[in-house]
Amino acid sequence: MVHGGAGDFGSLKTDRDTLRYLEGMRSTLEHGRQILQSGGSALETVEQCASLLEDDPVFNAGAGSVLNEDGKVEMDAAIMCGETLHAGAVAGIGNIANPIQLARVVLAEGEHVMLIGAGAQRFAASRNFEYMPDRYFLTPMRLAEWEQARLIQGNGLEGADAASLSGSENKYGTVGAVARDRLGNLAAATSTGGIANKRYGRVGDSPILGAGVYADNETCAVSCTGVGEDFMRTVLAKTLSDMIEFKSLDGPAAAREGIDYLMRKVKGRGGFILIDKQGRCASAFTTRKMIRGWIEQGGETLCQF
Amino acid sequence: MVHGGAGDFGSLKTDRDTLRYLEGMRSTLEHGRQILQSGGSALETVEQCASLLEDDPVFNAGAGSVLNEDGKVEMDAAIMCGETLHAGAVAGIGNIANPIQLARVVLAEGEHVMLIGAGAQRFAASRNFEYMPDRYFLTPMRLAEWEQARLIQGNGLEGADAASLSGSENKYGTVGAVARDRLGNLAAATSTGGIANKRYGRVGDSPILGAGVYADNETCAVSCTGVGEDFMRTVLAKTLSDMIEFKSLDGPAAAREGIDYLMRKVKGRGGFILIDKQGRCASAFTTRKMIRGWIEQGGETLCQF
Repeated sequence: MVHGGAGDFGSLKTDRDTLRYLEGMRSTLEHGRQILQSGGSALETVEQCASLLEDDPVFNAGAGSVLNEDGKVEMDAAIMCGETLHAGAVAGIGNIANPIQLARVVLAEGEHVMLIGAGAQRFAASRNFEYMPDRYFLTPMRLAEWEQARLIQGNGLEGADAASLSGSENKYGTVGAVARDRLGNLAAATSTGGIANKRYGRVGDSPILGAGVYADNETCAVSCTGVGEDFMRTVLAKTLSDMIEFKSLDGPAAAREGIDYLMRKVKGRGGFILIDKQGRCASAFTTRKMIRGWIEQGGETLCQF
Repeated sequence: MVHGGAGDFGSLKTDRDTLRYLEGMRSTLEHGRQILQSGGSALETVEQCASLLEDDPVFNAGAGSVLNEDGKVEMDAAIMCGETLHAGAVAGIGNIANPIQLARVVLAEGEHVMLIGAGAQRFAASRNFEYMPDRYFLTPMRLAEWEQARLIQGNGLEGADAASLSGSENKYGTVGAVARDRLGNLAAATSTGGIANKRYGRVGDSPILGAGVYADNETCAVSCTGVGEDFMRTVLAKTLSDMIEFKSLDGPAAAREGIDYLMRKVKGRGGFILIDKQGRCASAFTTRKMIRGWIEQGGETLCQF
């Protein structure tokens, strides 16, 4: 399963705009299918799928990341292996094309789980990650959005007014992937540019194990998207896993109870994709829309908006 | 309840060394009792107790923080309110006496949950946190430890050899506090200098909601200490909360099942303190020792090592 964010997507006024998102989902899913069919691991699959979504400037991650209050890109990503519970996470990094690949190296080295900011950047350089110049990220669309957001902030607009002017649907953008391979191993990956015009140094749920990402072969693999703070306060990805483990629910039942939990506890805004240990797919969201796609049990490719 | 870390504490060779830890626990607990007796909130209490422990150079947090691979202090802290599920977390910060107080300001402002690195530092300056010079943190004990750790690393020693030489018991140090007030509100706080000689940018479980800290009035308040990566991979604080909510356990029963979960899933090294919604106190740990103390239902002050 893959997702490309949750929100209103009110700016998608034409079928053509919508199609760009759906095409990104579909080609990523097909790529994931090929990896799994040729015997690749779930971990490899979610890393590759998240990388493809990071490379597609339509999505708020990697190349298409939104800008923070300083007009800079600060990206977060995490990846987790359900077989070993090993994980890697990076937060507050810039000038790297694929943060999920850096997270994978953190996972592989195993010494630490999470690296942030300048320290993560130094680690990336020492592992020969290519330095991408700012212009790789600063697309005309993101710059225009950022200037709009600054203008709104300067005018003191808030809430619905600001949202409708700034195309705030993008602010819930994230990409994610979850997979189950032939051996029954689960894995999850989440990557994001965060919230548009966010405060310098703000980290959301995406790189937080248990909040925006979780995988455990005994339960499920989860990737979340939405207002990160809501998912951090409820630790929603781990909550879903715990519902499966402690309440003996299957994935779809946990998805229903989990989205109720998110609403009841914090009126949370966003959603998630989930594959359980039997390979059942589920998703749920509280926003108007969520872009997601899945290939269940090797069957046909389905995408929904 | 308060704690001051878990580990072997093999370097505490005399009763006098041990006494310094126990005195720090006891005076902090008595201070917490006074706040609660005079009608203070659980949130205020855990912030104040964590601050006192940060100020005591015996503990690995605030003034007594261990040094990273660059010989610098990088601190992490988080605080959470069980009534509202609001929370504040900071990671990778230096030159601030009380990171837990900065986390409390993040919580109070409510816009974001987590701020890291240089962005968190800029936020602290804008909120008039005093800039503490490096010499406030670089105590002779920490500098000697750091030089010893570098020496061991240079000699290629690892595992038990390195641990026995470097006094690695300190590397599991953290401070934490959990409280329940007259209104039945719960709160939790955790603060740390991290792992001695850690990689620049490494973040452990302390500032991660659900890993090293969690509070929900419907379940419990938890603060963890130990090898942060083990608590991040199991999201242990939220797991304990979910055991209470989804398995209808009380605090002491959840503590027993929770420590088994930590061992079964990742052979985790460390422990936690917990107060449940009825005010029952519990703690558990897998290390040889854990410094902790509690005042249950307003009764006598108990400290254990």
